[in-house]
Amino acid sequence: MGAETSPSAAASEPAFAQAPVPADHPGVAELFAVLAYGEISAFYRLAEDAKLSPTLRGRVALASMAAAEMSHFETLHAALEARGVEIYAAMEPFRRSLDAYHACTTPSTWLESLVKAHVGDGIAADFYCEIAGTLAPEVASVVREVLAETGHSEFVVHEVRTAVEKSSLEKDRLMLWGRRLLGEAITQAQYVMAQQEDLADLVITATGDLTNIAALFDRMQVEHAKRMAVLGLH
Amino acid sequence: MGAETSPSAAASEPAFAQAPVPADHPGVAELFAVLAYGEISAFYRLAEDAKLSPTLRGRVALASMAAAEMSHFETLHAALEARGVEIYAAMEPFRRSLDAYHACTTPSTWLESLVKAHVGDGIAADFYCEIAGTLAPEVASVVREVLAETGHSEFVVHEVRTAVEKSSLEKDRLMLWGRRLLGEAITQAQYVMAQQEDLADLVITATGDLTNIAALFDRMQVEHAKRMAVLGLH
Repeated sequence: MGAETSPSAAASEPAFAQAPVPADHPGVAELFAVLAYGEISAFYRLAEDAKLSPTLRGRVALASMAAAEMSHFETLHAALEARGVEIYAAMEPFRRSLDAYHACTTPSTWLESLVKAHVGDGIAADFYCEIAGTLAPEVASVVREVLAETGHSEFVVHEVRTAVEKSSLEKDRLMLWGRRLLGEAITQAQYVMAQQEDLADLVITATGDLTNIAALFDRMQVEHAKRMAVLGLH
Repeated sequence: MGAETSPSAAASEPAFAQAPVPADHPGVAELFAVLAYGEISAFYRLAEDAKLSPTLRGRVALASMAAAEMSHFETLHAALEARGVEIYAAMEPFRRSLDAYHACTTPSTWLESLVKAHVGDGIAADFYCEIAGTLAPEVASVVREVLAETGHSEFVVHEVRTAVEKSSLEKDRLMLWGRRLLGEAITQAQYVMAQQEDLADLVITATGDLTNIAALFDRMQVEHAKRMAVLGLH
C-alpha cells in the first residue's frame, strides 16, 4: 500500500536498496507490541463510537470492524509468544501515547467516527507498510497480515459521501477533522519514537536516514489526501 | 451440549422420536434472527462490561469473546440471506426483549460481568441446542455452529474461582446474581415466544408439547447449576 502509487515513492529507494532489517533486531518486538496495543485500543474505540450510530446496520458495521482488529491481535500475540515476549508487559510503554491519540480524537458525531475508522486506520497502515518493506520477510509478513483491510469500507464510504454531498457545512467540518486526525497521529508517532529507543532505531535503520523519514511523512500526507477524496472530502 | 450429560435428559425423548421440524418452517428465519440479534447485543454488552476490568488482560479476554460473537453473526447473516430474508428487518421484533434482558442484568462489578459472560451465554446455548436436536440437519448445523464456545472460559473460571475462594461474601453475592440471570433469561424467552407466533410454533413442534417444554426448563436449571459449580459457586 502507499509507496507504489505515490508520486514521491522514488524518494524511498535508498532505504529499499539496503539489506533488510534482521528479524532479531530488538525493535521488532516493540513494533509487534505497539501494533498489538493499537488493535486493542481500536477495538474499544470502535465499540464505543458505535453508540453514535443512528441505525443498527451502522452498529453492526463497526462491530465487524472491531472484531477484525481482535483477529489481528491474536496474530501479534502468537508472533510475540514465538519470540518469548510477554505481550502485556511489552504493550505497556505504548498505552499512554495510543490512549492519548484516542482521547484527543474522540468523535462527537457518527460521521466523525466513520471518517476516523476509515482514515485513522489508513494513516497507521501507510506508516507500518512502508517500514514492513525494509524488514526481514518473516517479520514483514506478520506486519502486512495485521494491516490488511478490516472490511466494511464500502459502508463507510457510502455513508460519508452521501452526507457530504448533501451538506457543504458537514463537508468543511469533516475536512478539518481529517486534518486533525493526521496531525495527532504524526504527533503521537513521534512521541512513541522519542520514548522507545529500539523501535526508533528500527525505523531509522528501515528508512535509511532522517531525510527518508521526512519523505515518508510526505508520502503519508499524499495517501491521506487520496483517502479523504474517496470519502468525497477534497 | 446440555442434554447428553443431564440426568433428566430422558424426558426429552418423545420430542426426538418425531420427524425433524422441516427446514422451511416459517419459525426458522425467526430463530436465526433472534440468534443474530443475540450476537450483536452480546458483542456490545461485553465491550461495555470490559470497562469494569481492573487489568488489560481482562479487557482483552472480553474483547476476544465479543469478536467471536461477530463471527457467529456473519454465519447467521449468510444463512438468512440464503433464505432471501433481510436480517435487519428480521431482527427488529427481538430488540426489545433482548435489550430488556441486558438492561435488567447490567453488571455492577467486574466479577458480575465475568459470571454473566460465562453463565448467560450458557443458558442461551442450552435452550437453542435442545431445539437444534429436533430441526432439519441443515438448520441444526447453523444453530450448533453459532453456539460453539466463544473461548476464554479458562480465564473467566480462574478469575471467578480465585475471588470466591477468598471471600464468602462475594460468593453469596454471585450466587444470587447467577440465579437472577437464569430468571431473567427465562422470563424474556417466554416473552419472545408470546410475541412471535412462528417461533413459538417451531419450539412447540420441536419439543412435542408443553410438558416437554417444562422438562426442558428443568434441564436448563440443572445445567445452569453445573456451570455455576465450575465457577466455585455451589
